[in-house]
Amino acid sequence: MAELTEYDRLSVVLVNTRNPLNIGAVARAMTNFGFLDLRLVKPYPASFREARSAVGASAVLAAAREYESVSAAVADGTLVVGTTSGARRELEQPLELLGDVAKIIHKQLSSGRVAILFGSEKRGLSNDDLSHCHLVLRVPTHEGHSSMNLGQAVAVCLYELARSAPPARASAKPAGKTREKSKPPSGDLERITSLLVEAMRLSGYVDLRREASTEEKARRMVRRLDLTGADSKIWLGMLRQMVWKMKQSN
Amino acid sequence: MAELTEYDRLSVVLVNTRNPLNIGAVARAMTNFGFLDLRLVKPYPASFREARSAVGASAVLAAAREYESVSAAVADGTLVVGTTSGARRELEQPLELLGDVAKIIHKQLSSGRVAILFGSEKRGLSNDDLSHCHLVLRVPTHEGHSSMNLGQAVAVCLYELARSAPPARASAKPAGKTREKSKPPSGDLERITSLLVEAMRLSGYVDLRREASTEEKARRMVRRLDLTGADSKIWLGMLRQMVWKMKQSN
Repeated sequence: MAELTEYDRLSVVLVNTRNPLNIGAVARAMTNFGFLDLRLVKPYPASFREARSAVGASAVLAAAREYESVSAAVADGTLVVGTTSGARRELEQPLELLGDVAKIIHKQLSSGRVAILFGSEKRGLSNDDLSHCHLVLRVPTHEGHSSMNLGQAVAVCLYELARSAPPARASAKPAGKTREKSKPPSGDLERITSLLVEAMRLSGYVDLRREASTEEKARRMVRRLDLTGADSKIWLGMLRQMVWKMKQSN
Repeated sequence: MAELTEYDRLSVVLVNTRNPLNIGAVARAMTNFGFLDLRLVKPYPASFREARSAVGASAVLAAAREYESVSAAVADGTLVVGTTSGARRELEQPLELLGDVAKIIHKQLSSGRVAILFGSEKRGLSNDDLSHCHLVLRVPTHEGHSSMNLGQAVAVCLYELARSAPPARASAKPAGKTREKSKPPSGDLERITSLLVEAMRLSGYVDLRREASTEEKARRMVRRLDLTGADSKIWLGMLRQMVWKMKQSN
C-alpha cells in the first residue's frame, strides 16, 4: 500500500452516475484500496442522497463532494485520466491499457494530483468529458465484451494502482499464518513408512513376495507427501492405531 | 487474452450467495474477462432465479449450474482455491496474495481444472467450505478495510488472472518427462478423506462424538498431502483395503 499522503492526491471522479448502489460500490472499493477523495459531477440527485444515507455508508462517501462540471472537479489535477471501454468512438487522446497508465499515474502522484474519471452507467464519458483528459485508459477486457460494471471497473483500476505501487511503498502483508512449515525429522518419515507397509500387508493390499519393492515405493510415496512436522505426528498416530486394529482380526 | 480452451477450465464457484445483483455482477465480470463456467452452491433460491431473469442476463448466467454442496461443485477441480478477506480467522491452509496465486493457477490450468470459491456476502466462506481448498487467496487491500463487495472481488481476481496470463501458453507444452505432474480431481481427494475418516473411526483413533470436526480436519490434511493423480489412486486402494480389513474384526 502506498503512503496515505500520496493516495490522498488521487481523486476518483464519477460523472453523471445514476445508480446509488454504484456510488456506494465505488466508495467501498476506494476504502478497500486506501483511496479517500471521491468527487461526483452532476450525479442524479436522488442517487447521491440515497447512497449517502445507505446503511454502512463509508467515510469516503460522507466526505464526497459534488461538482457542477468536470472542469471544476478536475481543476486541481495535474494529470487527468479518462476511462473508456474503447469500443465506442474514435478518441483524440492516446488510449492506453490500465497497466501502462498505472505507471504514469504513480510517477505523477509523487509530485502532483491525479483525477480518474468514470462516466455514467449507460453512456460512459462523453466526448466533452474526455476533452478534459490528458490520456484515456482502458481495462484490457475480452474482445466484444468490454463494457464493465461501474463499481467493478473502479475496483479493478484501484487494485491495479495499489498492486503496481512502487516497491518502497508497497507493504501489503498477508495476514494469518506464514507459509513456512516445520519439517519432520526423517526418522518420523521412516516410521510412517514402516507402519504403512505393515498396514498394506495386514490389510492384504500387498502380499509378502512383493514386500521388498513395496517398502521402497512406500518410502518414496511418504516423502512425496511433503508432510509438516505436526501432520507427520498425526499420521504416525493414525497408522499405529489402524495397524493395531488390523492385528486384532488376524 | 488467453485461449478460450484454457479459460474454459476455470470455474467461478459462488457459495450461498444472497443478492441476485451480485450474481449478475459476477457473471458480467466473467464475460468481461473471458471466463465462462459459473457454478452456484446453494444460492438463495430467489436470487438465482431473479438474476437469470434479469434484463440482459448473459450467456454465462444462462449456462450457470447449481450444486447441492461445495464438494459436488469442485469435484472435477485439480486445484481448488478459496478466497478470504484474511481478517477473520486463522486458516489451516497457506494464505497467499492474489498475484502469487494467479501464477499457480496459470500453471495448473495448462493441464487441469481450477475452481475459485467466493463465499456469501455476509460471512464469506465457512471453515467447512475452506476445508475443500488447496490454498486460500486474499486480495491485497488496505489494512482494516479488507472486506470487499462480492462482484468487485470477483472482477479484481479475474482481472489479475487475465493480466498475468503467460503470453504464449497455448503452444508452450514441454515434451516428455519434464511435464508437470498431474493432479487428482477433488472427487478423489474427497473419497480419500471419507475412507480416512472411516479408518480412523474403525480403528478407534477417533470416537463418534468428535467425528464432525474430524472430517473437516481430515479433509484439510488430505489436501495438504498435495498428492499426484497416480498416488491418489494408490491411497484410495490402500485405504479401501484397510477399511475392509478393519470391518472384518468388528
